[in-house]
Amino acid sequence: MASPSSDSRALYEELLKSSRELGLLGSCAAVLGWDEQTYMPPGASSLRGDQMALLAGIQHDRGTDPRLGELLENLHDSSLAAELDSIESANVRQLRRDYARRIKLPRALVEDLARTTSLAQQEWVGAKHASDFARFRPWLDRVLALKRQESACLLECLEDRRDGLGNEQGSEGAATIYDPLLDEYEQGARTARLRVVFGDLRESLSPFVKQIAEAGGMRNPGESVLRRRFPIDRQRVLAESAAAALGFDFQRGRLDVTEHPFCTGIGSGDVRVTTKYDERRFDDAFFSVLHEVGHGLYEQGLPTESWGTPAGESVSLGVHESQSRLWENFVGRSRSFWSYWFPVAHRTFHDALHDVTLEQFLGEINRVEPSLIRIQADEVTYNLHVLIRFDLELALLSGDLATADLPEAWNAKYAETLGVTPANDAEGCLQDVHWAAGLIGYFPTYTLGNIYAAQLYARATADLPGLEAGFARGESADLLAWLRDKIHRQGRRYAPTDLIERAVGGPIDAAPLMAHLRRKYGELYGLSSSPAPGDGPGASQPR
Amino acid sequence: MASPSSDSRALYEELLKSSRELGLLGSCAAVLGWDEQTYMPPGASSLRGDQMALLAGIQHDRGTDPRLGELLENLHDSSLAAELDSIESANVRQLRRDYARRIKLPRALVEDLARTTSLAQQEWVGAKHASDFARFRPWLDRVLALKRQESACLLECLEDRRDGLGNEQGSEGAATIYDPLLDEYEQGARTARLRVVFGDLRESLSPFVKQIAEAGGMRNPGESVLRRRFPIDRQRVLAESAAAALGFDFQRGRLDVTEHPFCTGIGSGDVRVTTKYDERRFDDAFFSVLHEVGHGLYEQGLPTESWGTPAGESVSLGVHESQSRLWENFVGRSRSFWSYWFPVAHRTFHDALHDVTLEQFLGEINRVEPSLIRIQADEVTYNLHVLIRFDLELALLSGDLATADLPEAWNAKYAETLGVTPANDAEGCLQDVHWAAGLIGYFPTYTLGNIYAAQLYARATADLPGLEAGFARGESADLLAWLRDKIHRQGRRYAPTDLIERAVGGPIDAAPLMAHLRRKYGELYGLSSSPAPGDGPGASQPR
Repeated sequence: MASPSSDSRALYEELLKSSRELGLLGSCAAVLGWDEQTYMPPGASSLRGDQMALLAGIQHDRGTDPRLGELLENLHDSSLAAELDSIESANVRQLRRDYARRIKLPRALVEDLARTTSLAQQEWVGAKHASDFARFRPWLDRVLALKRQESACLLECLEDRRDGLGNEQGSEGAATIYDPLLDEYEQGARTARLRVVFGDLRESLSPFVKQIAEAGGMRNPGESVLRRRFPIDRQRVLAESAAAALGFDFQRGRLDVTEHPFCTGIGSGDVRVTTKYDERRFDDAFFSVLHEVGHGLYEQGLPTESWGTPAGESVSLGVHESQSRLWENFVGRSRSFWSYWFPVAHRTFHDALHDVTLEQFLGEINRVEPSLIRIQADEVTYNLHVLIRFDLELALLSGDLATADLPEAWNAKYAETLGVTPANDAEGCLQDVHWAAGLIGYFPTYTLGNIYAAQLYARATADLPGLEAGFARGESADLLAWLRDKIHRQGRRYAPTDLIERAVGGPIDAAPLMAHLRRKYGELYGLSSSPAPGDGPGASQPR
Repeated sequence: MASPSSDSRALYEELLKSSRELGLLGSCAAVLGWDEQTYMPPGASSLRGDQMALLAGIQHDRGTDPRLGELLENLHDSSLAAELDSIESANVRQLRRDYARRIKLPRALVEDLARTTSLAQQEWVGAKHASDFARFRPWLDRVLALKRQESACLLECLEDRRDGLGNEQGSEGAATIYDPLLDEYEQGARTARLRVVFGDLRESLSPFVKQIAEAGGMRNPGESVLRRRFPIDRQRVLAESAAAALGFDFQRGRLDVTEHPFCTGIGSGDVRVTTKYDERRFDDAFFSVLHEVGHGLYEQGLPTESWGTPAGESVSLGVHESQSRLWENFVGRSRSFWSYWFPVAHRTFHDALHDVTLEQFLGEINRVEPSLIRIQADEVTYNLHVLIRFDLELALLSGDLATADLPEAWNAKYAETLGVTPANDAEGCLQDVHWAAGLIGYFPTYTLGNIYAAQLYARATADLPGLEAGFARGESADLLAWLRDKIHRQGRRYAPTDLIERAVGGPIDAAPLMAHLRRKYGELYGLSSSPAPGDGPGASQPR
């Protein structure tokens, strides 16, 4: 193959410069977004909407500059992009995809979405505090109308794409209104495919939850030692200690308090996570910190030298979530992790834990219990929360479900799936910020993340035999190094499914997730350890 | 006069839209600037420099768009701009001035300044902590070189301008390299004029300081009750209570902690002040909060409906400083203010204040004492700190003083002017952030602010006879309303000197400042109350 001409090298440099400038604009908006959730005074809300709209508009203008299109077309056909595995070709390929999507969106829509979701999030905070869905509903209608427009604009970009779970698209019919939004978060994923995978998962999970319930798993939550008094200042110290021990670099990040925990990667040197403390819910903040720190470790591990280009970006929300869930659950809720940290917690919270044993504590932090709040849910029922939201947002977006009927539909789904009913909308359909923020198509990536996490963790423990023994000594640097190598440093060079396949040596598969749950909770709840039918390799694939 | 054509009305609306967008971009940069000083992790510093440079570059591009020049030329000649006192004509006039300045500056210089001052401020923090001027010096050289370039670009914009202190320019010779920078902060002010005014002020102040010293004013600072232990959490409560009582709206603002206190007006609904607490220096944080709140009240009082246009902007740094100094000193250090607040402070800091009387306390917060740190200086010596910086930055900018010689020159000036010598550069030439931030020409506006504040306060007490009796009841809403009316709501409709003249009913005059100092400190230090020669009206004018 001919070596790339100096011409295409110059074009490529011009392309990267433009990409970095777009990245910089996005990072400015990320600072403003973080500020909005953390410290911004209420009186700033309408100005903040205008600021976000302006930045989104400028980003859109620059990102749809015809010169960018020219560069991409020229480079697409150049020898520089021909080497499929090179960073250059990945950058050109991904920037071309982003450009193709961007030029479909009118600037006015982009600005409107930025402004509306900024304002809607602020209204959501107030509506949630007042548990008043009616107050939020007009904002949800506005967001949905804009997202439908966005989807319609993006629909044709989906053609000729490979399905995100490893299959060619087409067999399950034409793309739906949900697909273009889903594709934004999980490149290549498709609704029809998710319905099948999630349907299978539901079929495995529901009887397993029942089995645990029958084994006497569901005790009175009021009794939990985790509901004793855990002073917030000490919770903060323990959470920050654990975060630092897992490798989160506070020189390049922070931890703050917000209504809804999140992580934002402004740059690899500026990664900010948040949590929410409740004196009577130790597990809330602690595990949400581990979760967000998992996201943060990914962001801090992205290759700094490629910042502002696809090679320096995270690949998808599903893969992002695999990192947060891996640290939160596979590490943070494990016996080996607490072999080290329980004595520390014991000293930190003497009043609450003096009469509690490690066994009791492990039982409590892994208690399986159908509940109302997703981010407080245990590992087993968690995905059922996600599946409910997936069904509902599909119906909302398509118009099959009117927003007026959302609270009732939400409550019915919870009753049917988990056997619990919210007392009000704050613990029902107002609990999550996502819809206010315009994040439609985002929820399913949580369950994809759990599936990926189980596959990655299974592979990591095979590759690193002393891993869990290390956790028991407070050491997890090997696992972080493994993830840095397999995932973080790869940026967005490969499609999400390709990246996972390269890391684990096989296709996407929900079996390791079910196997992990059956093994761990079978032990905790004294269930028969024989695998259920359909848990073998490939079991999550359609029958 | 013909009514404005609908054509020029449309052009005017286009002009305002462009102005508001520039305002929005500036406000995004203001959020990032605030974040940089408050919560940004250290690892973000180089990215933050790039972000600031990009925003400055975009702002510059939009602010120098030839279309904007066309609009301004058309509107300048239109009937809309002919009514000199109208908001429309003020907006056109001021935007035309800003545009004329902006098009002189190359984009590369603007970006370089934004990036360099962002990085230099971070280096300054480290250098100050280490008290290591050598570490900061290359950054100061870079900043000075860029500011010299900026000045050279802007020099010709100064021609045909009215002097900022009420006289036509020309009599004191050609504009200097310092003038264009000064004009940025205090429109119309000129170096030659300031030299005269400041020279006179120094001549009045120096003997007065000596007189106080001879009256036994300078006791051992170690003895002050203000150096007892004042728990920081309670300092915060008292400072925030006082801020709220003076009218600072925390729904539209915040108070945070930074290395160097400041106020940033992101919008009239988003005004953020900062302070720095020291358990052993009660007066530091308390009066810096009143000071920054004074700035904040101005920002919160700007007309919201004109946001993003000159009519909605503060008029100059000198006028801004008049607001901060007025609340800090004329209100906050007065007997009447503490008649109300001392009992509160007494209850808040029982250990530190239980044996202290109001008289003692007033003596302490008004103790006159030549000192090293400007922002800790008393009202009497404060302006001498400013005059030192004014002399030094003139010499640095012109090249008469090499940066290598700055620490020595600084220390010599302090020894000569105030009779004290810094033990190190942290309490010497590294104490202020201004030069790192590129704020050359900024310091003199502090003394102008003191002069304006004294004039405004004298007028307000004449207009509102019960004012000080109100302070003693914890009430100051009348004063705020007066300032809102005379200053805040006027935005940038008039030149700084014109605005002050309209408010006080006479020309700029330093006599009220000296009269205030002689009256207040004459009483506190038992000096003869007869005015010194040269304190009459117009005394600060050149002889």
